[in-house]
Amino acid sequence: MSDENKRRTSVGIYGQQYIIIGTESNEHIRRVAASVDEKMRQISAKNPALDISKLAVLTAVNAVNDYIKLKEQYDLLESEFKKLKD
Amino acid sequence: MSDENKRRTSVGIYGQQYIIIGTESNEHIRRVAASVDEKMRQISAKNPALDISKLAVLTAVNAVNDYIKLKEQYDLLESEFKKLKD
Repeated sequence: MSDENKRRTSVGIYGQQYIIIGTESNEHIRRVAASVDEKMRQISAKNPALDISKLAVLTAVNAVNDYIKLKEQYDLLESEFKKLKD
Repeated sequence: MSDENKRRTSVGIYGQQYIIIGTESNEHIRRVAASVDEKMRQISAKNPALDISKLAVLTAVNAVNDYIKLKEQYDLLESEFKKLKD
């Protein structure tokens, strides 16, 4: 995709501003950023001694964990769906 | 779940050690950590000037973005599945 089709969205996450460049809508990026911000605040509340880089890494771990578990559910549902279709 | 059912897994992500406490298997946590480490290295290669905390936040943004897109696909598949079952 050419650069002119990419959008720039400015978002605030945990008190810092970020410019996110990509093909997704501004609304989608804001939803993603709000979710990251919320996860960081939840993890920080449970672990107040964490510095911001460790907090962000653990937030990424949390998000990838959610993704992998959902992917397993998705694959299972997809295989059930295919059986039902055939 | 009581604390004795929780596992502690030590993982290395982007040169730092983390203890992850949770109910998932050590193998699952290592897979998650390897995925976070890989994402951080990919984002860092494209943005070498980023400091580690911004790099980790952008990695979390990337992971949550993947999760939200997969969740939309999952919901769509689930609704197709229910239609087919009825």
